[in-house]
Amino acid sequence: MKVLIILGGKMPDDFLKKMYENYKADYVIVADGALAAMDRTGLIFHSLVGDFDTIAPEILEKYEHRSNIYVERHIPEKNQTDSELAVWIAMKKQPKEIAILGATGGRMDHTIGNIHLLYQCMKKNIPCVIYDEWNRITLIQKEAIFQKKTSYGTYISFLPFQEYAEHVTLEGFRYPLSDALLEKGTTLAISNEIEADIAKVTVEKGILICVESRD
Amino acid sequence: MKVLIILGGKMPDDFLKKMYENYKADYVIVADGALAAMDRTGLIFHSLVGDFDTIAPEILEKYEHRSNIYVERHIPEKNQTDSELAVWIAMKKQPKEIAILGATGGRMDHTIGNIHLLYQCMKKNIPCVIYDEWNRITLIQKEAIFQKKTSYGTYISFLPFQEYAEHVTLEGFRYPLSDALLEKGTTLAISNEIEADIAKVTVEKGILICVESRD
Repeated sequence: MKVLIILGGKMPDDFLKKMYENYKADYVIVADGALAAMDRTGLIFHSLVGDFDTIAPEILEKYEHRSNIYVERHIPEKNQTDSELAVWIAMKKQPKEIAILGATGGRMDHTIGNIHLLYQCMKKNIPCVIYDEWNRITLIQKEAIFQKKTSYGTYISFLPFQEYAEHVTLEGFRYPLSDALLEKGTTLAISNEIEADIAKVTVEKGILICVESRD
Repeated sequence: MKVLIILGGKMPDDFLKKMYENYKADYVIVADGALAAMDRTGLIFHSLVGDFDTIAPEILEKYEHRSNIYVERHIPEKNQTDSELAVWIAMKKQPKEIAILGATGGRMDHTIGNIHLLYQCMKKNIPCVIYDEWNRITLIQKEAIFQKKTSYGTYISFLPFQEYAEHVTLEGFRYPLSDALLEKGTTLAISNEIEADIAKVTVEKGILICVESRD
């Protein structure tokens, strides 16, 4: 099962529609303010979650009591963001993978919090990817393979998610690395490019934030 | 001495001008692509750094050889982003504080890398703040005080910069916390608000990312 989560970050409707169609999710979860975009685009979804403080009541009314939509309404004083609650619903489905849209832009607390949520999925061994117009963001443990032809943009960057990412090796990239230490606060592996048809990153200890980006 | 760093992230000219005028920096450092905005606005700066791969040659020519601008030109194959090189120049000035503009938006590798740069400043005991139109971002060690009247927006959020932030106490906030554990990957302290005139956060172990934001 593939789950798609749609959050309320900044995102043009045409990007949402294109990603929705390409991803072909089996289950779609919408968090709070993102309902406005779903209402505008008419895209089908299966679950709606949040405290509903950022959605117009007249839009909420249209979807809140539909029998084919699972609605989870929370109090505003909850201990999780709407994004985290959406990820919890996704993880309960025990999916093969999760994709998140609307995770970035505007409020940086939400953006950073959403990137941190990838870690919650990683701990449960569920691959999870954040997509926006310019970036594809994942966390990498141990190793990952990239194909040049399916890359998201010109640039690919690796940053340490924790204090250090140790023994990092990059093969098939424009700027290769061999057994390097990535230290949080430094920018050694930002703005690399995939050069070979297949490129490989390995990290022996620690976790990498991987950002593929378009300028 | 107060140092202002201007990076090439997304930023409207009027925000740049307002922040530049309000901050009253003693020394202004411009990184690469940000030169275009400085050229448009006519704001004075003292240092220009980067590999100059994202600036039009005709704009670069106007500033590259001025005797009153310290220019540091690097090869594109360098091991640091232009942002990190700008922070290095700033730190050499042994400033009382550093503010960074143009650090966010668009490419998330640069955005995350720039937030991580705050850590490099923290290690040298130099307070450093990222400002964009919607957010003020800092790192907090031990404790910090916030005045309601000087807050940057409605919301204030705290996220763990490392695996854990331990024994976190929030006083004077809408949602107080007492001796709480913030675990990376969870979103407990996102979307709080300053309630008292003076609010205080303490963290006994670990570092907090603090984001004050406007919606």
